[in-house]
Amino acid sequence: MRNLKLTLAYDGTDFCGWQIQPDARTVQGELERALAATTGEAIRTVASGRTDAGVHALGQVVSFRTGVDWPIESFRRALATHLPEDMAVVAAEDAPPDFHAIRSAKRKRYRYLIHDGRIADVHRRRFAWHCRERLDERLMRMGAEALVGTHDFASFQTTGAPRESTVRTIYEVSIQRGSGEDWLGPIERLVSIEVEADGFLYNMMRSIAGTLAHVGRGKYAPAWVGEVLAARDRTQAGPTAPACGLFLVSVTY
Amino acid sequence: MRNLKLTLAYDGTDFCGWQIQPDARTVQGELERALAATTGEAIRTVASGRTDAGVHALGQVVSFRTGVDWPIESFRRALATHLPEDMAVVAAEDAPPDFHAIRSAKRKRYRYLIHDGRIADVHRRRFAWHCRERLDERLMRMGAEALVGTHDFASFQTTGAPRESTVRTIYEVSIQRGSGEDWLGPIERLVSIEVEADGFLYNMMRSIAGTLAHVGRGKYAPAWVGEVLAARDRTQAGPTAPACGLFLVSVTY
Repeated sequence: MRNLKLTLAYDGTDFCGWQIQPDARTVQGELERALAATTGEAIRTVASGRTDAGVHALGQVVSFRTGVDWPIESFRRALATHLPEDMAVVAAEDAPPDFHAIRSAKRKRYRYLIHDGRIADVHRRRFAWHCRERLDERLMRMGAEALVGTHDFASFQTTGAPRESTVRTIYEVSIQRGSGEDWLGPIERLVSIEVEADGFLYNMMRSIAGTLAHVGRGKYAPAWVGEVLAARDRTQAGPTAPACGLFLVSVTY
Repeated sequence: MRNLKLTLAYDGTDFCGWQIQPDARTVQGELERALAATTGEAIRTVASGRTDAGVHALGQVVSFRTGVDWPIESFRRALATHLPEDMAVVAAEDAPPDFHAIRSAKRKRYRYLIHDGRIADVHRRRFAWHCRERLDERLMRMGAEALVGTHDFASFQTTGAPRESTVRTIYEVSIQRGSGEDWLGPIERLVSIEVEADGFLYNMMRSIAGTLAHVGRGKYAPAWVGEVLAARDRTQAGPTAPACGLFLVSVTY
């Protein structure tokens, strides 16, 4: 059997998340339906992580085995014709036999977009959390410094999802505000939070975003983020920010 | 009565165009419903132009009269609470008594977005025409030069919409390709055509986009655009490009 690696983009708005479920439209469900239509095989796929309902992807990675022996680009093109318009295969590659989308992952990068303007951004409303108070991104950057490095991120994990360890390593946090406008309109009220880590706990990125938004709007000083981290207590952190602002950007293997 | 001027943004995807119609969701219908809910008055609005089904706006301008005497920012905020999420009031101003969104307009600017990548752009699919052949934007620019100035644009008007004159003045045509990526993904396969003119005939911008796309994909040489213009015959031009790529960017008064 051939081991394939797909890189997927999807607009998560109209999906009930990655994981296949009966009677719900999911990314995995649509992908496996399209794979069955393309190959005639019943294929079970594995993704680098199960994105929640409403979460988007620019570079979700999926692995699976198949018996088809077509050239990879023919396979990608055939599969594309069976996918709905809110999903796309960005890349298709043959992977080594031991490649596994979850177990082989070394780093992941997530982006969280916040729109902090008083006027709604109608063209990007599916892709950003509309937070009506102006955020100070310099304060957010100061607060975020405490998160970089190897820490116990228990304060940033939604309970009910126990893991062996809540220690993770964040390699980078980057917070940027747009300037001027692009072809969909003004972007100076868009703030991007990007985090690269060796792994993410359940809802970790969304609780980091909710916590940094509290700092950005002046509710807490930047030093509070370090206190939240040290507390190892989810109730100390900010709220879990809405799913619509979250993108899985890339997975490094 | 007070004369107000609103600047509206909307995602046109889920509207049957600007003009109010029974049993159809239109921008004017939603706006007038929201104005009635805000003011208690039955207000009839006038827009700078009637955008078609699926056409977007970043700066549509609307005028109407009202008896309400609230401060303009309170009015804008109250109105915003009654609008659906795919519409926003970008600006609200008191206008001179003789201001009229159609008759006072001096210039309009439209943008047409084309995505020419082989992989669909899932996050911008509502806002760009997906044209699978690679376009050469330098050829498109050469072709577009013939359009600048005062000409009879009869070749670029959909028939069935007779006007007194088909002569218009195009002040500028700007064709740009994106580079790198933005927060919604790669943009190097996005091409923007912007046209500023003293007015646009029915479907003029979309037939210009369809014509320039023919040049961009090498079907016709750039000089063909001048021949199409000189022919004053709609059948000579390229197809009317789909509504989803079109934005009314701004109106100058």
